[in-house]
Formats: sequence, structure tokens, C-alpha cells
Amino acid sequence: MAISDVLLALELSLQQRRTADPNSSYVASLYAKGLNKILEKVGEEATEMILAAKDFEQDPQALIKETADLWFHSLVMLAHLQVPLEMVLKELSDRQGVSGLVEKAGRTHS
Amino acid sequence: MAISDVLLALELSLQQRRTADPNSSYVASLYAKGLNKILEKVGEEATEMILAAKDFEQDPQALIKETADLWFHSLVMLAHLQVPLEMVLKELSDRQGVSGLVEKAGRTHS
Amino acid sequence: MAISDVLLALELSLQQRRTADPNSSYVASLYAKGLNKILEKVGEEATEMILAAKDFEQDPQALIKETADLWFHSLVMLAHLQVPLEMVLKELSDRQGVSGLVEKAGRTHS
Amino acid sequence: MAISDVLLALELSLQQRRTADPNSSYVASLYAKGLNKILEKVGEEATEMILAAKDFEQDPQALIKETADLWFHSLVMLAHLQVPLEMVLKELSDRQGVSGLVEKAGRTHS
Repeated sequence: MAISDVLLALELSLQQRRTADPNSSYVASLYAKGLNKILEKVGEEATEMILAAKDFEQDPQALIKETADLWFHSLVMLAHLQVPLEMVLKELSDRQGVSGLVEKAGRTHS
Repeated sequence: MAISDVLLALELSLQQRRTADPNSSYVASLYAKGLNKILEKVGEEATEMILAAKDFEQDPQALIKETADLWFHSLVMLAHLQVPLEMVLKELSDRQGVSGLVEKAGRTHS
Repeated sequence: MAISDVLLALELSLQQRRTADPNSSYVASLYAKGLNKILEKVGEEATEMILAAKDFEQDPQALIKETADLWFHSLVMLAHLQVPLEMVLKELSDRQGVSGLVEKAGRTHS
Repeated sequence: MAISDVLLALELSLQQRRTADPNSSYVASLYAKGLNKILEKVGEEATEMILAAKDFEQDPQALIKETADLWFHSLVMLAHLQVPLEMVLKELSDRQGVSGLVEKAGRTHS
């Protein structure tokens, strides 16, 4: 699996767990608790990522973990609301400059 | 460009703008203002994503935009601190169950 | 006015501005924009207070300003939803230990 | 105790617990865990207050509790950093319009 496919793979895994027994995993228990609980986790992880960024020089690894936690819980939120990750990626792709700059970078490296 | 490559393409674009004139773009101005300003934006976007999730039934498109905004500013933070996105994706990949479930899903669909 | 009455005085002022022309003040414009805009400000100010707490040694005054900003926007939220501040203060008073400890402190100082 | 004195009483109680055994109370354990843990709680409570404000019509009491929680943890943060609450109240009092409007309101009601 290419590293760029990790998020799509994770999305698939999260979608599959939507119908699982709430006691079967952390994510299944989050779904069962509902949207507010998922959003509380998003807020917690956003705060923890911000704190880890402030402490980056002392502990760079923590920022990587906290960013992963925030994105993970964002994906749980999307899966819970049945929003495909692809729509978020397409939104990012559509924004000004990304495609152009990437294309140019591709030419530079080829 | 495959949709799964959007984030890596965006990362490349954000890294290239780190040395740009602060007046040349929104992102260049964020880098110039420094880490606190970038983290303030992360906090703002996290709040806006949470509000959009609560209003999802009235306006599903807003959640897609706000999630894109939060991830975009997370990528600006990583680029500012020179943390490769690949390390966040690897952290997500290493966590329990993702690879296994994906592999199994691949077999199911083949 | 005793310093402890500042919040009740501020609440009164905020309640009075609820019916003001949206162009007449910052707070009147916030009310007109509605609950989401007020909550976005709360989220922003919470992030800024957290950042100021992390930078406290370099700039102690900033923490005081950001805490005031967060409480101010909490009061705007309460006024917008017509929740009396007194109910929040009563909730804090009812919680375990506060009254008792205060009473004891009063005896110690008398 | 007048309701307006609750916050000053709570501050006194929180200051007294700064030197307590970490196992003696929730607040003492927070102090022992340090600033980041206190700020994580602030971020959590800010998110929970925002969610409660969105759900205000279904459950008004929850907003009162969550606002109390956010202010409580703000006070823990101030006590941990040895910032007097009075400085925050003075900052709010000094801001434009509060004193004037209050004075005017006082005349109206007399």
C-alpha cells in the first residue's frame, strides 16, 4: 500500500466498523455514543495538537502523534455522518494553486 | 493525479511557499506571522468544523469545506515546523488494525 | 463598584445591547450574526488563552487579556441565549467544597 | 456570601489547594500533572460548552454546567500560574463602555 493511500484505507476500515458491536472496539463505542462524543474528541485532539506544536522542540514525536489523532477523529466524524473522504480531498484539490503548482513541480522533477 | 495524492501535492506546494515573499500569498503571510498565528487558525478551523458537523443536516457542504480548512491549516503547521506529512500517515498506518482490515477488505472485493 | 461586581455589571451592559442597532457596536454586530458567530469567537478566544498560557513567562499580561476575552465572549453567549450569569455562579457555588472552604477561610482571616 | 463573590471565594479555595497532596482532590491532581493537563481540560470544556450551546433548546441546564466547567478550569489555570482573578476582572472593567453603561443603568433604576 502506498503511503498516500493510508487515509483511504483508514476510511474504509472506519466505515466497516459503523455496524459493529459497540463493545468491539474504541471506534465502535464512539459511534454508539454519537456525534457529540465524537466532536468532543475532535476538540480534545485539536487542543492536544496545538500544545504539542508549542512543545515541538522538546518533543517532536508528540506532534506527529497528536496530528494523527486529530485526523483520525476527523475521519471518524466523516464516517459517522457518511461523508466520503474523497469529497474533502477534492475540495482541497479544487482550491486555487494546488493543481497548478503540483503540475509544475512534476515537470521540474521529470 | 490520483485523489489520494492530493495531500502530498498540497504539502509540496506549502513547502515551496515557505521561502516566498510574505505578501505573495495567504500562506506566505501565515508563515511570516509565525507559529502562534498558524495555531490560532487551527483552533478557529477546529471550532468551525465542529459547528458545521452540528449543522450537517441543514448544510452538508459546509462540513466538507471546514474539514478541508482544518486539514489545510494542519498541513501549514507541519510545513512550518518542517515535519513531513509522511510521518503522520505512517503513524496512522502503524496503528492497530488498519493494515489488516484493509488487506481483508481487498480480498473481499477481489 | 466592587471588583466582584464587574461580571454582573458587564452582563447588564450586554443584555441592554441585545436590542441595539447591529451597526452600533461590536457586541450588537455579534448578536446580529447569531449563535454560530458567537461560538466561533468563543473557540478562537479559548485557543488564544491556551497559547498565552504557554507563553506566560515571556508575556504574562497577554494571559490576562485573553482570559478576559474568553469570559467576555462567554457572557455574550449567555446574554444571547438569555441565560442569567447568576445561574452559572450558583452552579459553581453549589459544587462540593467551595462554600465550606470559603467559610473556613473567613474564620481564619477574622 | 453574595453571588458576585463566588468567583473570588472559588479562587481562594483553588489557591489553598495548590500545596495539597496530589491525591487529596481532583484539583490537586491537576496541579501536579502540570500546565499542559490543565490546558487540555480548558480545551475540552470549551468544546463541551460550544456543543451545549448548540443543543441549548433541548437541554438548557447543560449549558450552565459546561460554562461553569470552563470558568472553573480557567480559574485553575490562573491559580496554577499565580495570576490573581482580580487582574482579569480589572481588565474587563477597564474596557470601553462597561463602567459608563453600568452607571447609567444604575441611575435608570434608582
